[in-house]
Amino acid sequence: MISVIIIGAGNVASHFYKTFKTAETVSVTQWYNRRLNAIETYQNEVEITDDIKALKPADVYLIAVKDDAISHLSSQLPFEDRLVVHTSGSIGVHDLDKKLKRGVFYPLQTFTKDADVDFSTIPLCIETINKADYQTLKTLGEAIGCKTYKVNGDQRKALHLAAVFVNNFTNQLYRVAHEITESEGVEFEILKPLITETAKKVQDISPYMAQTGPAKRNDKKTIKKHLKLLNNEHHKAIYKLLTASIQKTHGRQKL
Amino acid sequence: MISVIIIGAGNVASHFYKTFKTAETVSVTQWYNRRLNAIETYQNEVEITDDIKALKPADVYLIAVKDDAISHLSSQLPFEDRLVVHTSGSIGVHDLDKKLKRGVFYPLQTFTKDADVDFSTIPLCIETINKADYQTLKTLGEAIGCKTYKVNGDQRKALHLAAVFVNNFTNQLYRVAHEITESEGVEFEILKPLITETAKKVQDISPYMAQTGPAKRNDKKTIKKHLKLLNNEHHKAIYKLLTASIQKTHGRQKL
Ligand SMILES: NC(=O)c1ccc[n+]([C@@H]2O[C@H](COP(=O)([O-])OP(=O)(O)OC[C@H]3O[C@@H](n4cnc5c(N)ncnc54)[C@H](OP(=O)(O)O)[C@@H]3O)[C@@H](O)[C@H]2O)c1
Ligand SMILES: NC(=O)c1ccc[n+]([C@@H]2O[C@H](COP(=O)([O-])OP(=O)(O)OC[C@H]3O[C@@H](n4cnc5c(N)ncnc54)[C@H](OP(=O)(O)O)[C@@H]3O)[C@@H](O)[C@H]2O)c1
Repeated sequence: MISVIIIGAGNVASHFYKTFKTAETVSVTQWYNRRLNAIETYQNEVEITDDIKALKPADVYLIAVKDDAISHLSSQLPFEDRLVVHTSGSIGVHDLDKKLKRGVFYPLQTFTKDADVDFSTIPLCIETINKADYQTLKTLGEAIGCKTYKVNGDQRKALHLAAVFVNNFTNQLYRVAHEITESEGVEFEILKPLITETAKKVQDISPYMAQTGPAKRNDKKTIKKHLKLLNNEHHKAIYKLLTASIQKTHGRQKL
Repeated sequence: MISVIIIGAGNVASHFYKTFKTAETVSVTQWYNRRLNAIETYQNEVEITDDIKALKPADVYLIAVKDDAISHLSSQLPFEDRLVVHTSGSIGVHDLDKKLKRGVFYPLQTFTKDADVDFSTIPLCIETINKADYQTLKTLGEAIGCKTYKVNGDQRKALHLAAVFVNNFTNQLYRVAHEITESEGVEFEILKPLITETAKKVQDISPYMAQTGPAKRNDKKTIKKHLKLLNNEHHKAIYKLLTASIQKTHGRQKL
């Protein structure tokens, strides 16, 4: 049995709490947040506290608070040499106070408050300073069904950055597509199956192999037509840059 | 029963042939291609020909050949006043020879040779010059389980362009993410669930509502960190442009 104390009450903390509760080999023994009312609804099932000095012994302390608050909060912990992890993609393991046994337990997924989370599909990136702690975190991740990966600090930062491309930037391309269809009064709905298929394709083959379309084919006629059709300068700039990017990747001459 | 003659033997023609064959209310009565050997394997189940003069009467002639060849091929058809459609997103309905009853039957999806196609998830964009023909094509689309949409030429061109954004350009962002993770020796695999989730989210809520991340939050510290991390100038340019685009959409000041 691994005992866990959760620190923080945001999206990530709450989802971890819920999944730990259902895991047979994990026991959440305490939940801390600086404002008690964020976790009050759970007081019948778990010990809650807003007093950092009242934290009890546990195998793992999971800090899931705002990135900027992690370092200071870790320095306030009233103990030493216990395993404390944060859940951030961009904060270093060394940003935790060095009196502690330190680690990172970073779930690479977007969490939204209301949506249910299926942890069995979430990759968990683990880093620790001590080898023995790595095994504890791996066991904890597996107890909630996650696939775990050993990922060092530089790698985690690269993943966090890459996640911006596949999540935020991709979503913005969907937004531009929405603007383009809307301007002709045609339903964005029609594009949804293609969005699904595009994401599905790279689950099995590399994005390099999956590429098709006018940029890759260097179909100048279609590219010209498209640029003429785009009257929003911003959309045009994106079209040109990503077309050039595809052509660079696939060894075509630049636009 | 709707009788169909297929013209062409590429990805699109082959997938339409297979799905028409399984539809109870559709009968493929002939299959034409300029090179017979591309369709020879089917000669026991359907009449095949490479002689355009030998085309028989049918309710619908489906031209699924290279975009550049559609217009000329339609002018060679040895009849008038029959319903002839092409399957292209970027060619106009008026590019078909005017001696014919003309229409467009454009499936908005990417087709690859080997992968099976589930037509029940494919939006079919229909345009016709005569109203009566529209109903025939709608019935034909529904017979293979497609959701059909009435889409005029300008709208279809907008969809075709928007499809480049959600398919080719999105796939290129996946590629850039692949390059970023590879450069740190970390598995692209780890990003796949996030790719899936990002596509899934906009099935239910708009891309505008789905947006999160440093650009939308105007989190200058993280944006700066990311730009410093990117040593490929090309990746940097994409990061800057799409961050600016998100900030424009969400009313933040520009980078
Ligand atoms: N959201 C995601 O999709 C996601 C995904 C992977 C990793 N992460 C990481 O997970 C961590 C938590 O993120 P989140 O999105 O759940 O929540 P968040 O909105 O970043 O943080 C919410 C929690 O932080 C606490 N907090 C904020 N400032 C604090 C301070 N100065 N001192 C103490 N506590 C403070 C809040 O307390 P109050 O309730 O009192 O305000 C609340 O419990 C972050 O490190 C984030 O990078 C997030
Ligand atoms: N691929 C997709 O994902 C997709 C999606 C939606 C719509 N479309 C549209 O569907 C149509 C077909 O595309 P596709 O990808 O299946 O195939 P394609 O590779 O564009 O075309 C293959 C077919 O065109 C024939 N062809 C080429 N040049 C010809 C010419 N000069 N005269 C007569 N026939 C000629 C080929 O004959 P041979 O076998 O003799 O070479 C072959 O049967 C296009 O209009 C395309 O825009 C494609």
